[in-house]
Amino acid sequence: AILNFTSNHSELLCLQLNTVSLCADPTAASYTDSSDDETSPREKTQVNSKGSSDFCVKNIKQAEFGRREIEIAEQDMSALISLRKRAQGEKPLAGAKVVGCTHITAQTAVLIETLVALGAQCRWTACNIYSTQNEVAAALAEIGVAVFAWKGESEDDFWWCIDRCVNTEGWQANMILDDGGDLTHWVYKKYPSVFKKVQGIVEESVTGVHRLYQLSKAGKLCVPAMNVNDSVTKQKFDNLYCCRESILDGLKRTTDVMFGGKQVVVCGYGEVGKGCCSALKALGAIVCVTEIDPICALQACMDGFKVVKLNEVVRHMDMVITCTGNKNVVTREQLDRMKNGCIVCNMGHSNTEIDVASLRTPELTWERVRSQVDHIIWPDGKRVILLAEGRLLNLSCSTVPSFVLSITATTQALALIELYNAPEGRYRQDVYLLPKKMDEYVASLHLPNFDAHLTELSDEQAKYMGLNKNGPFKPNYYRYQHHSTQSE
Amino acid sequence: AILNFTSNHSELLCLQLNTVSLCADPTAASYTDSSDDETSPREKTQVNSKGSSDFCVKNIKQAEFGRREIEIAEQDMSALISLRKRAQGEKPLAGAKVVGCTHITAQTAVLIETLVALGAQCRWTACNIYSTQNEVAAALAEIGVAVFAWKGESEDDFWWCIDRCVNTEGWQANMILDDGGDLTHWVYKKYPSVFKKVQGIVEESVTGVHRLYQLSKAGKLCVPAMNVNDSVTKQKFDNLYCCRESILDGLKRTTDVMFGGKQVVVCGYGEVGKGCCSALKALGAIVCVTEIDPICALQACMDGFKVVKLNEVVRHMDMVITCTGNKNVVTREQLDRMKNGCIVCNMGHSNTEIDVASLRTPELTWERVRSQVDHIIWPDGKRVILLAEGRLLNLSCSTVPSFVLSITATTQALALIELYNAPEGRYRQDVYLLPKKMDEYVASLHLPNFDAHLTELSDEQAKYMGLNKNGPFKPNYYRYQHHSTQSE
Amino acid sequence: AILNFTSNHSELLCLQLNTVSLCADPTAASYTDSSDDETSPREKTQVNSKGSSDFCVKNIKQAEFGRREIEIAEQDMSALISLRKRAQGEKPLAGAKVVGCTHITAQTAVLIETLVALGAQCRWTACNIYSTQNEVAAALAEIGVAVFAWKGESEDDFWWCIDRCVNTEGWQANMILDDGGDLTHWVYKKYPSVFKKVQGIVEESVTGVHRLYQLSKAGKLCVPAMNVNDSVTKQKFDNLYCCRESILDGLKRTTDVMFGGKQVVVCGYGEVGKGCCSALKALGAIVCVTEIDPICALQACMDGFKVVKLNEVVRHMDMVITCTGNKNVVTREQLDRMKNGCIVCNMGHSNTEIDVASLRTPELTWERVRSQVDHIIWPDGKRVILLAEGRLLNLSCSTVPSFVLSITATTQALALIELYNAPEGRYRQDVYLLPKKMDEYVASLHLPNFDAHLTELSDEQAKYMGLNKNGPFKPNYYRYQHHSTQSE
Amino acid sequence: AILNFTSNHSELLCLQLNTVSLCADPTAASYTDSSDDETSPREKTQVNSKGSSDFCVKNIKQAEFGRREIEIAEQDMSALISLRKRAQGEKPLAGAKVVGCTHITAQTAVLIETLVALGAQCRWTACNIYSTQNEVAAALAEIGVAVFAWKGESEDDFWWCIDRCVNTEGWQANMILDDGGDLTHWVYKKYPSVFKKVQGIVEESVTGVHRLYQLSKAGKLCVPAMNVNDSVTKQKFDNLYCCRESILDGLKRTTDVMFGGKQVVVCGYGEVGKGCCSALKALGAIVCVTEIDPICALQACMDGFKVVKLNEVVRHMDMVITCTGNKNVVTREQLDRMKNGCIVCNMGHSNTEIDVASLRTPELTWERVRSQVDHIIWPDGKRVILLAEGRLLNLSCSTVPSFVLSITATTQALALIELYNAPEGRYRQDVYLLPKKMDEYVASLHLPNFDAHLTELSDEQAKYMGLNKNGPFKPNYYRYQHHSTQSE
Repeated sequence: AILNFTSNHSELLCLQLNTVSLCADPTAASYTDSSDDETSPREKTQVNSKGSSDFCVKNIKQAEFGRREIEIAEQDMSALISLRKRAQGEKPLAGAKVVGCTHITAQTAVLIETLVALGAQCRWTACNIYSTQNEVAAALAEIGVAVFAWKGESEDDFWWCIDRCVNTEGWQANMILDDGGDLTHWVYKKYPSVFKKVQGIVEESVTGVHRLYQLSKAGKLCVPAMNVNDSVTKQKFDNLYCCRESILDGLKRTTDVMFGGKQVVVCGYGEVGKGCCSALKALGAIVCVTEIDPICALQACMDGFKVVKLNEVVRHMDMVITCTGNKNVVTREQLDRMKNGCIVCNMGHSNTEIDVASLRTPELTWERVRSQVDHIIWPDGKRVILLAEGRLLNLSCSTVPSFVLSITATTQALALIELYNAPEGRYRQDVYLLPKKMDEYVASLHLPNFDAHLTELSDEQAKYMGLNKNGPFKPNYYRYQHHSTQSE
Repeated sequence: AILNFTSNHSELLCLQLNTVSLCADPTAASYTDSSDDETSPREKTQVNSKGSSDFCVKNIKQAEFGRREIEIAEQDMSALISLRKRAQGEKPLAGAKVVGCTHITAQTAVLIETLVALGAQCRWTACNIYSTQNEVAAALAEIGVAVFAWKGESEDDFWWCIDRCVNTEGWQANMILDDGGDLTHWVYKKYPSVFKKVQGIVEESVTGVHRLYQLSKAGKLCVPAMNVNDSVTKQKFDNLYCCRESILDGLKRTTDVMFGGKQVVVCGYGEVGKGCCSALKALGAIVCVTEIDPICALQACMDGFKVVKLNEVVRHMDMVITCTGNKNVVTREQLDRMKNGCIVCNMGHSNTEIDVASLRTPELTWERVRSQVDHIIWPDGKRVILLAEGRLLNLSCSTVPSFVLSITATTQALALIELYNAPEGRYRQDVYLLPKKMDEYVASLHLPNFDAHLTELSDEQAKYMGLNKNGPFKPNYYRYQHHSTQSE
Repeated sequence: AILNFTSNHSELLCLQLNTVSLCADPTAASYTDSSDDETSPREKTQVNSKGSSDFCVKNIKQAEFGRREIEIAEQDMSALISLRKRAQGEKPLAGAKVVGCTHITAQTAVLIETLVALGAQCRWTACNIYSTQNEVAAALAEIGVAVFAWKGESEDDFWWCIDRCVNTEGWQANMILDDGGDLTHWVYKKYPSVFKKVQGIVEESVTGVHRLYQLSKAGKLCVPAMNVNDSVTKQKFDNLYCCRESILDGLKRTTDVMFGGKQVVVCGYGEVGKGCCSALKALGAIVCVTEIDPICALQACMDGFKVVKLNEVVRHMDMVITCTGNKNVVTREQLDRMKNGCIVCNMGHSNTEIDVASLRTPELTWERVRSQVDHIIWPDGKRVILLAEGRLLNLSCSTVPSFVLSITATTQALALIELYNAPEGRYRQDVYLLPKKMDEYVASLHLPNFDAHLTELSDEQAKYMGLNKNGPFKPNYYRYQHHSTQSE
Repeated sequence: AILNFTSNHSELLCLQLNTVSLCADPTAASYTDSSDDETSPREKTQVNSKGSSDFCVKNIKQAEFGRREIEIAEQDMSALISLRKRAQGEKPLAGAKVVGCTHITAQTAVLIETLVALGAQCRWTACNIYSTQNEVAAALAEIGVAVFAWKGESEDDFWWCIDRCVNTEGWQANMILDDGGDLTHWVYKKYPSVFKKVQGIVEESVTGVHRLYQLSKAGKLCVPAMNVNDSVTKQKFDNLYCCRESILDGLKRTTDVMFGGKQVVVCGYGEVGKGCCSALKALGAIVCVTEIDPICALQACMDGFKVVKLNEVVRHMDMVITCTGNKNVVTREQLDRMKNGCIVCNMGHSNTEIDVASLRTPELTWERVRSQVDHIIWPDGKRVILLAEGRLLNLSCSTVPSFVLSITATTQALALIELYNAPEGRYRQDVYLLPKKMDEYVASLHLPNFDAHLTELSDEQAKYMGLNKNGPFKPNYYRYQHHSTQSE
């Protein structure tokens, strides 16, 4: 069954990457070259400075480098730091035993260390075989977190690490924090009895949430689960704002392109497309848009973007950016018609948007000119510049601001606290969204970063509005405000 | 009961005005001065050129002027014109007898004439005693629509006109198009038997929709009703885009103020606030924001607006603009602290946002310097410039683009067609939102204005996305995408 | 000679209007209807409240209305108010007898009253037969300024008024403030002996400055003259910023057009074009540009505007705006190809940019739909919407912010002070630009409006930069920074 | 004398770097690690594939990598490519022997190869000891250009390389292309007789131009020189547009900071400051400005930036960016008052703007967290993030778009052609600016990149405007349009 499940594991990982869309570029931030040491971490014996060896990382000696990265990340994640301070007295996670499976980066380290500060014991593994920052894993291991992860795991390593997190003597998890659903899946398959003690699952990714809903529908979900993916804060900030920042960064780091005056077509005008269009236009690009949905198309018009069909404009474009979530949005025929020097990249959900496979034909020459940058050369000498082989640009070629990750991480921490402390009966064996009020609390924890001062309702005003002075201030359906699933 | 209901009628009208927020400034567009003729239209006998006298307007001779206004409006309402063309063959409203109660402006005239072109017979009255464009009413009367409305009706006139629309020999309405709920209310109270033949009510305003839901809850709604107010197209375009355009216009027409470098505080960062902030910032104003909701506050931060409390900044502001929907957002104490020349105005839901009443004290002098512009003069000579006495600026001091009105009008027309043609059983005695797909159809009818070209899904893509190629393209909850009820 | 000079006077006035580009729309601001009184002011005898009759205005009784307008203007002209305060003790214009010829509006009234406050005696007339605000003229007359001006003068009236200003018993001007050069011309022709006492001329307009340079070249300039037109503050603010504000206002007031998604071509990307493009793009229009100069064209590209030929795009445009200073930029052939509803207007130097004359042919119908708005109707029913008959839109259809006028007026006042107080020999019989340092002083007087705080150089820094701590901070050629004479 | 001149050579190099401000980050683009080979290139014998050894580069084997970089650069430098095509037939540089001293990057390689294509023979060396891209130098050597340059030259190497370029048997330069004036200086000092044959010098940098003017003043300039630095295209594009692009890139690559909602103060509102402010505001930062010049301050106000003193705001800022050209703009006292996490960097002319020296005191800890990123840690744990040790951010931490470099390079090529082909007597022993018309030609060569279409004047229009149909379109003083020397 496992084999069956993992048969298309690489595709699965890819999917996770695409949906999570939030791991920092591991290469960019790596200060220590591990390539010299080819020994598998599984074969090494390492001990941290306190004498523990309950971890498996690339090189525990890199801990100090990792600590520095974590400290840098903390500067933009003050919401978690303030959560530590506010909740530290009461230790709301005292007694919690959290097993976690996420990208292991400086930002998740800040989350994990917050959970520890709030009283939790943590065992952690990576949700992706490539994304682990080795020095960060070392730093976590050094302070006593049982981490099992390194960059460049094999698939066998991947499941071995998960297993080591879950299956350890004298320790049994009572909370699960998952990103992609692999950990949850493993526990279901191998250690179903663990669920007797588990008080809840917190899941961040589209894929993982999808699986939980399927389990729930099938009546097989045996503990409450919190869907963090669809919280308004995550949706809003991961998409619109994050893409507004990362589209420019990703294009610059790979191509050093100048934006002023460039003709760009953005395929899809959902939140991701809106973020891309806004940033590109702001820096002087001339942007047009393709859409299938007339309402989004009308928004694009009102926002000042010409709505076109890709075929009408593809000859003249300097850049083609996909943000649709659909497949074959850019076809080989259209790639054939692009002009010399056209840059093609993908900011959408999956690596199917550009039909990259169609470019792997004998008459075209691929030339890798930089990391993540391929020139595809036509027989007549025309070059199309393909970024990240059509995978997500912002995942592959830029970094994600710690501040944006802080919003998701804070939501995860609050979801854990909520599930762990909820009175009997509040949550049943179902998938829940974080209560609106906690969404607002996540937002409020991030306002001090901006020195923003909220206005408080007077009693009279609260009454007039029919609101509680402390919120929630919006009805529940507001949660979906900026959620546009299909055309991105 | 009627008396009781209308006891606070002026407040009611005000509410309607606020929620509708879409009537063109009647004074601005009036080319004919009717003030010379003091005779009540009710006492005149007028006949149109075809000999009919089944109407009551200020002056049928103004028809030609009104026709010109209607023609101008048509230029930006081509969705309705194309609806006429597409549906004219089949006359989907053949047999429909529509009684309507809306603002009577050039734009609603385009709607009414579209209904007529689709086969309907129409009788019409005004939902507001001030907003009728007399020459437009005349133009409608001239082509045979039974219009009962003029600018400056008394309250008695108001109900008399409604009554004349409904209560006419040999004609009984089978459809109601209402804006504010007064017409519906009147029929309920006076002619309940009419509902035996009525196939549906189409209601546009917040107030009217609220009443319909109350009727529905109370089990008293006896026909299906369509809630046009909450359609995504209306919400999105009436608020964000419309305010983006009208805030500048309203301020300029009243004060000729220069925007560059002006310090502005916008109270409330909902859709209206977002539209105002975006436009003001774009023209060089330095804008800050107040908010009660941490999520909207965080959006303001990310959009580049400092989030402050009004008290912290009120001394330094050149303009204070309210968009909260709340009351007493600007208090007398804050007005006392404003600097000389500060402009204060309201773009929000109601005229309670600025505590204007508190300014009517003996020590302050009011000086009316222009229409809709008062200088409030403090004993030390300080002047605060109050616009429209705190009523809605964009209603009072600017015009609304015909294009925006076209979206609402098209939605109303489609709602009528849907209710009139729906097979038995599709709609029960409840309040409905327009089906998602018709929302999308409204949007698509407006795309030709922008020469926008939609992309069509291939079969393969539609299957991959799990969508019908013809839409709907978004789930139903997407409808609420940009709907922020409470903090505007 | 006079006759010869004035033979094409109406064209001249037009030129002046175009180059000055700064008179408030007289109709818009007029609260009092003078049309009922057809008597020529020259035939009336009027006396102000102090018993003086040394003036000639439409109706002295409108003084109070005018006073209110002046007070409103003062709010945005605080630089002049602060100049009054700073210089009042020493009365730097004590003994100055200023004869002035400018538009007579609330804003120039603030200037005139500042001159009076600084010690000057003033006699004033209008530089344009249409632009006088009668009530403002009355207010000036009421406080004792000898004003000779009204709206709707005949050409004979025009010169009569000038003559009355100059030629009065017991008073001889020693300073001239001119706008267009007509006053200067009159003095040259009729009262050359006046120049014996005149210490200088301050001239604001392109036309007037041009004439002065011609006089200077011909060796006929007999007093020093200050060219205010080319001061950096005036150039920069009158063009870029003023047009950024007025293009939207002018279009809205005439057509109520929605900007979002509109396709606009702006002909000419000088300062005026830059201001128009920036504002339109900011509100969601899709803007392209035509240019003859490759450098300006390259700027347009980098700023995100497609550079096109008018012929390529004219079919698809919703608006065509000229800002070139050239003639026949929009030809009849292009007007023939515009789509139904296209708006055509001019923001450039002269009314020749659009070939309006070519539209006066029998097959086209002109329909005046509003003040300043004509529909030109083609035989097939197509309508093109022509604003202000091709004259300057911002002059005809919008108002100019008082703040912008304040910059020019302050420069004029300082130029008068400089010339009046300059030691013998500083200025010869030539045309001068205001010293750089005084330009900077004008700017600094306007900073308090924005609560802007200048940084002061330390001694060490000033030495490092080779600058005087008090300025000037830029070399003289910086003056031309944003001056683009030819393509606007 | 040489010693004296070069005594502060490192400072000099720094100056050059600052003024040139356009070398691509050499580390970023380096694909080949040369650090393994410690042998000095001067001690190696290398031969290119054609058997020549008249060059001295790090490693001729890297030529292929360099060729790829040059090809990438060519894609955005099509103006030079089109110049090759247009001028290739006539070979306007046939017979020219150009000795050049510039940064050696892919972009300058495109220039050099253009000169070769136009008929010139070239010998080349680096104007900076750090900025050479070794693989590009190899690629040039491979095609036969006599290059003497590598990354990490000693000062002795630097002059040795220059000498090898100039002093070679059987070849004598007749044109000089210089960047910084070191080559020109060397020829003056060591080989003055060379000037007998030299037809002109083309100089790009502020420093070099300054020296040429000094020589000219002293009567010692013995050939015509072309000042490329002050051409309008270079000024405009190097400053405003280039900084608009590079400020975001430099900050992102070093700190991964999120821009949304960040509070930023930009010191100096010249062209560089304008570019920085525009980009940061566009991405959601809240930007304020410091200025010493009231005119620039007023522009900042009108553009929507609050003008403040640094002391007033420094406590609250997330980023402090200097663009003044002045010294000690950010003092130790101000650094002491910054909040934790504040980012400090310099975009101005010199590395003196931030008083970095004052931070090298015992109580502060410096921690190098990434290349070009130092955390300065105060005793209380506060960290200030200093980028590039206060040197130019865009030079150190970002790349410059090839397109921008193309404008300068094209100007250099045209200046060479002009000087080389000018008829006797057109240029004397003085410093010249490129004729306006050639500036416009440079711009026009870059328009095809944007598919921009210039409008041509009709005969009638040209006559009306008093212009030649082929330009120049602006008077000469327009050249200085956007040149603001002192406050940047």
